[in-house]
Amino acid sequence: MKRYGKVIKIKPEKLDYYKKLHAEPWPEVIKAINECNVRNFSIYFRDGYLYSYYEYIGNNYDADMRKMSEMTKEWLKETNPCQVPVETAKKGEWWAEMEEVFHTD
Amino acid sequence: MKRYGKVIKIKPEKLDYYKKLHAEPWPEVIKAINECNVRNFSIYFRDGYLYSYYEYIGNNYDADMRKMSEMTKEWLKETNPCQVPVETAKKGEWWAEMEEVFHTD
Repeated sequence: MKRYGKVIKIKPEKLDYYKKLHAEPWPEVIKAINECNVRNFSIYFRDGYLYSYYEYIGNNYDADMRKMSEMTKEWLKETNPCQVPVETAKKGEWWAEMEEVFHTD
Repeated sequence: MKRYGKVIKIKPEKLDYYKKLHAEPWPEVIKAINECNVRNFSIYFRDGYLYSYYEYIGNNYDADMRKMSEMTKEWLKETNPCQVPVETAKKGEWWAEMEEVFHTD
């Protein structure tokens, strides 16, 4: 299992809509997360930023992430316009990966 | 079980020391985390901020947090001077709580 922590900015005017979507996520989104081997997935908000944490239990992360994007295409059409990558994101990076500095089970 | 996501700033000049401490955490710190009913505890770093995620499995959070502070007093003498609360933290708040906007197991 591999843990991921990521960050992205949220447009202030889109925060309410983003929260509303995530308060009642579409069943196909939950199904996609599950089928793509992502577990214990949380998103937090504070001060204009969104932080995600999840655990990946599969063995082909890139393929599963591509599959998840495909399966959640319609959902991402709603959520992507709410978000803006952080200034320091790599070219093409959407949610930017954070560095794990500590973990204990 | 209740999940917590928190954020705090790290002083740039203290980042290396903070990472070094957390790469080889003191055994008494791990013991304290465990005895105080905190599980699956991660800290991430990006762009001057630290983000923590953990799961609390006990039934008296405030008492366990006080106990953990007491048990990790010497460790906190090392880590606290590395950190600065975010501008929007409440009075007296150290790590500032983030708002959970999504979760799926």
